[in-house]
Amino acid sequence: MTQTKAEAIRELVIANRILSEEKILFEAFGHISMRNPENPNEFLLSRSLAASQVEEADIYTYDMDANCLTPTKKRSFAERVIYSSIYKQRPDVMAICHNHAQELIPFTVVDVPFRPVSHYGAPFYKGVPVYDNYDVSDGMLIKNEFEGERVARALGDKTALFLRGHGVIVVGESLRKCVMNSVFMKIDAQNQHNSLVLGTPKYLSYEEGKTCDERTWNGALSQERAWNYWTSKVVK
Amino acid sequence: MTQTKAEAIRELVIANRILSEEKILFEAFGHISMRNPENPNEFLLSRSLAASQVEEADIYTYDMDANCLTPTKKRSFAERVIYSSIYKQRPDVMAICHNHAQELIPFTVVDVPFRPVSHYGAPFYKGVPVYDNYDVSDGMLIKNEFEGERVARALGDKTALFLRGHGVIVVGESLRKCVMNSVFMKIDAQNQHNSLVLGTPKYLSYEEGKTCDERTWNGALSQERAWNYWTSKVVK
Amino acid sequence: MTQTKAEAIRELVIANRILSEEKILFEAFGHISMRNPENPNEFLLSRSLAASQVEEADIYTYDMDANCLTPTKKRSFAERVIYSSIYKQRPDVMAICHNHAQELIPFTVVDVPFRPVSHYGAPFYKGVPVYDNYDVSDGMLIKNEFEGERVARALGDKTALFLRGHGVIVVGESLRKCVMNSVFMKIDAQNQHNSLVLGTPKYLSYEEGKTCDERTWNGALSQERAWNYWTSKVVK
Amino acid sequence: MTQTKAEAIRELVIANRILSEEKILFEAFGHISMRNPENPNEFLLSRSLAASQVEEADIYTYDMDANCLTPTKKRSFAERVIYSSIYKQRPDVMAICHNHAQELIPFTVVDVPFRPVSHYGAPFYKGVPVYDNYDVSDGMLIKNEFEGERVARALGDKTALFLRGHGVIVVGESLRKCVMNSVFMKIDAQNQHNSLVLGTPKYLSYEEGKTCDERTWNGALSQERAWNYWTSKVVK
Repeated sequence: MTQTKAEAIRELVIANRILSEEKILFEAFGHISMRNPENPNEFLLSRSLAASQVEEADIYTYDMDANCLTPTKKRSFAERVIYSSIYKQRPDVMAICHNHAQELIPFTVVDVPFRPVSHYGAPFYKGVPVYDNYDVSDGMLIKNEFEGERVARALGDKTALFLRGHGVIVVGESLRKCVMNSVFMKIDAQNQHNSLVLGTPKYLSYEEGKTCDERTWNGALSQERAWNYWTSKVVK
Repeated sequence: MTQTKAEAIRELVIANRILSEEKILFEAFGHISMRNPENPNEFLLSRSLAASQVEEADIYTYDMDANCLTPTKKRSFAERVIYSSIYKQRPDVMAICHNHAQELIPFTVVDVPFRPVSHYGAPFYKGVPVYDNYDVSDGMLIKNEFEGERVARALGDKTALFLRGHGVIVVGESLRKCVMNSVFMKIDAQNQHNSLVLGTPKYLSYEEGKTCDERTWNGALSQERAWNYWTSKVVK
Repeated sequence: MTQTKAEAIRELVIANRILSEEKILFEAFGHISMRNPENPNEFLLSRSLAASQVEEADIYTYDMDANCLTPTKKRSFAERVIYSSIYKQRPDVMAICHNHAQELIPFTVVDVPFRPVSHYGAPFYKGVPVYDNYDVSDGMLIKNEFEGERVARALGDKTALFLRGHGVIVVGESLRKCVMNSVFMKIDAQNQHNSLVLGTPKYLSYEEGKTCDERTWNGALSQERAWNYWTSKVVK
Repeated sequence: MTQTKAEAIRELVIANRILSEEKILFEAFGHISMRNPENPNEFLLSRSLAASQVEEADIYTYDMDANCLTPTKKRSFAERVIYSSIYKQRPDVMAICHNHAQELIPFTVVDVPFRPVSHYGAPFYKGVPVYDNYDVSDGMLIKNEFEGERVARALGDKTALFLRGHGVIVVGESLRKCVMNSVFMKIDAQNQHNSLVLGTPKYLSYEEGKTCDERTWNGALSQERAWNYWTSKVVK
C-alpha cells in the first residue's frame, strides 16, 4: 500500500494512542517512529510528549542523523538516535517502537531467555538479545550516535532488542506490524512469566514461531481485524 | 426455552460483548458460536471481527462443513472448522467458545493439570485435556477439517480442551452456560495459579465438582442472576 | 448512632455498590446483610441479584430462621441461612458479608495461615479459621440450617471464616465496619501473597493487630474518611 | 521557579489527584504535603480526606510542630508529625508523600532489599531503610513527636523510608519530583517483584542509579513531560 506522508502521520498518531491505551507507552515515556513513506532517508516521530497526548502537529520529521527537519522551538526526544541508527542498518524496517512495558523488564535483568510460549510470541522466534553496554554518563539513555550504532548492531536481524534495566526496541516491516509486535510481546511476556512460575514451559519450536508469524500474523485477516479493533478503541 | 434464530442472534451479539468486557475474547482474537435453534445442522458465528465490534448483521450462518451460507463478500474466521467438527460429534453441545484468555495459557504449556480449586471451576470436574498435534504449516491455527476432527476427538465428552501454546475450546449445553463456563474457567485458572504459587492446593473432589456444576451453576437461580448481570454491563 | 430501618436500607444499598466497585461482590455472586436496627431479630438482605444492580426495593426483611418476611414472588439467595445462623450466635455482630474475592481463595485451599502483614490486616488479628465440612449434595453452598449452625460454630468469636474452595464470611460490629473489614481483608490478602512469594514475612504481632484495629480502624477519623470516599465513588 | 502559596496549593491539589489516579494514595488513606514556598517553616497538607476528594479549600497550613494554623473545626490527619519532623531535619526536602502502595508492602516485611532493577528505580540508588520501632499503643501510626523524630532519623539522607507492615515515606526536592519519585517507586517495586520471582536480577549499579536520577529524571525534559501527562489525566 503506497501511503502519503500525510496519511502516515495520521496513522502514527493512532499508533501512539493505541500503545498508550495498551499501557505499552505508559506514564509519558517511550515512543514510536516510522519511516517517511515519501523519503526512506527520513523518519517521523512525535516531539517530546506523552503518547496519549500526541496530535498530528506534534509529529516532526528527522533525517538519518536524527536532526529535526521540522522548524520548531519545541523539544525532541533525547533517544531519537535509536531510530536513525536502526533505519540506516535495516532497510527492511519501516517502523520502530521503544517502550518500557513492565512485563518485559524481568527478561532484561534476569538470566531467563525470552522465548514464545503462545502464538502471540511468534514474531520473536529468532530470540531477543539483551543490550548491556551503556554509556553510564548518559543516564542510561541511548543519546549519542556511537551508542546508537552499538544498539543497532546488537539488534542485528532480530525483531526486538532488550535494553538491560530499561526497556525494549521493537521493529516492524510496517507501522501496523510494529504495533502488533509491541502488543503481542507484552502479552507473551506475561504468558511466559505466568508459565515459568508454575514449571518448565514447552516453548514454540523455531518452525512453529516462524510459520505462525509469517502465515497467521502477517496475513491480511489478522492485520486488518486487529488494526480495526485497536483503532475503534482510540478513535471515537 | 425455544428460541427463534433471530432471538439467538441477538443473544449471540450480547455474548460477544460480555466476553470482550471480561477480557476473554480480547485484542480482536477468539470467537463464540451457537447452534441455530431452528436447524441443528447449522451454526451461527460472527464474521472475522473483534468481539467488541460485533453487531447482529455480522452474525453469519454456517453448515456442518463450515461453509458460510450467508451471502457476503466479507471474510469468515479461519478457524471455524473447530465449530463444525465439534457440533457434529457432540449433539449435547449448543454453544462453543474459542478463546486465548491469558490466565489459561500456563496450563497449556506447563505440566500442571487444570483442576478446580474453587466452586467456579466446578464445570471442569472431568478434567481438561491438552491438544498438541498441530499442522504446523497452518501457523498453529485449526484451519482444516482433518485437524478439526482431531480436535473434536481430543475434546471427547469434556467441557473444555486446551490447545497447547494457543488457547482453549469451551463448550456448553446452552449459550448462557457456555458464557458462564468461559468466565468461570478464567476465574478458577487465576485461583489455581495463585494457590499453586503458595503451596499444594486441596482441589475439589470429582463429586464436589459434579454436584456443584449440576445443582448450583446449572440452577435457574445462578443462571438468571449471572446473565442479567453480564447483560447489564454491556447493554445500556 | 440510632438508625431507622429506612436509613439502614439506604446504607445497605450503598454497601452493595461499594463492594461491587471493589470487585469483592463480583460477577453477580456474594452478598451482604445487616441486622434490622429496629428489630434485632430480623435482618436485611437483597433478593437474589448482583450487588451492582441492587436498589432499595430489592432489600427484603428476613427472620432468624431465614424466612423472607417481605411479600414477594421474587427469589431470595439460597445461602441466607449463613446470616440467620450467625446473627443468632453473635449478638455483637450487626452486619455480615459473604464473598468470593479471588485474593482470598488460596488461603482456603493451601496450608498457609491468613495472618496480617500490613495494618490493613489488623481486623483479623485473632486468625481466620477454615470451614471444610460441606454437605456436598448442596453443591458446595451453605443452604440448610444444620450447615448454617456448623458454620456459625466454626466462626466462633472471630472476624472472618474461610469456606474451603468457595470464599469467606466477614462480620462487623456495624455495616460500615463490615464493609471496611471486607475491603481490608482483600488488600491484606494481596499483601500476604506478594510477601510470601518473596520470602518469610514478619507478621503483625497479636498486640499490634488488636491495637491497630481498636484504635485506628475503629476510630471515627478512619471510619468517616473511608465511608465518605467509598460513597463518593458509587453515589454520583 | 518561585511560586506563591496560592500556586503551591493549586499544584498540591493536582498532586493529590494524580496519586489517587495512580492508586498510590488509594482507598482514602495516605497523603502528600509540601513546604510553604512563602515560609519554609510551614507546610501545606489537606485535612483528613481521601486524596481523590481534595479541593483547594481543604489544604491547610501547619507549623513545624504540626499545629494547624488554618482556623477550622475540621479534622487534621493523625500522622502529620511525619511531615514536621522531616521538614525540620531535611532543609533540602520540599515535599513529602506518605503512602501504602501495595507493591511496596513486601519490601517492608520480607528480608529482601529494595534495589532498582529499572531506570524508574534510580531515585532510590542510596537504598531504602526499613523503620520498625513503633509505639504500638498508637495503632501502628506515627502520631507523636518522639516517634516523628525517630522516623526522621531513620530516613537520614535517603529518598524514602519504609514503615514495616504499613507503607512508605517518599521525599522530593520539589513537589513534582516527589510525585515522580512516588510513582516510579511503585513501578520499580513491581519490576523488582516480577524479576525476583524469575531469578536473581542484575540491579542498577550505584553510579548508574545516581547518574540516571540526576541527569534523566531531574532533567527538564522528563519533568515537564511527566507532569503535563499526569495533569492531563486529572484536570479536564
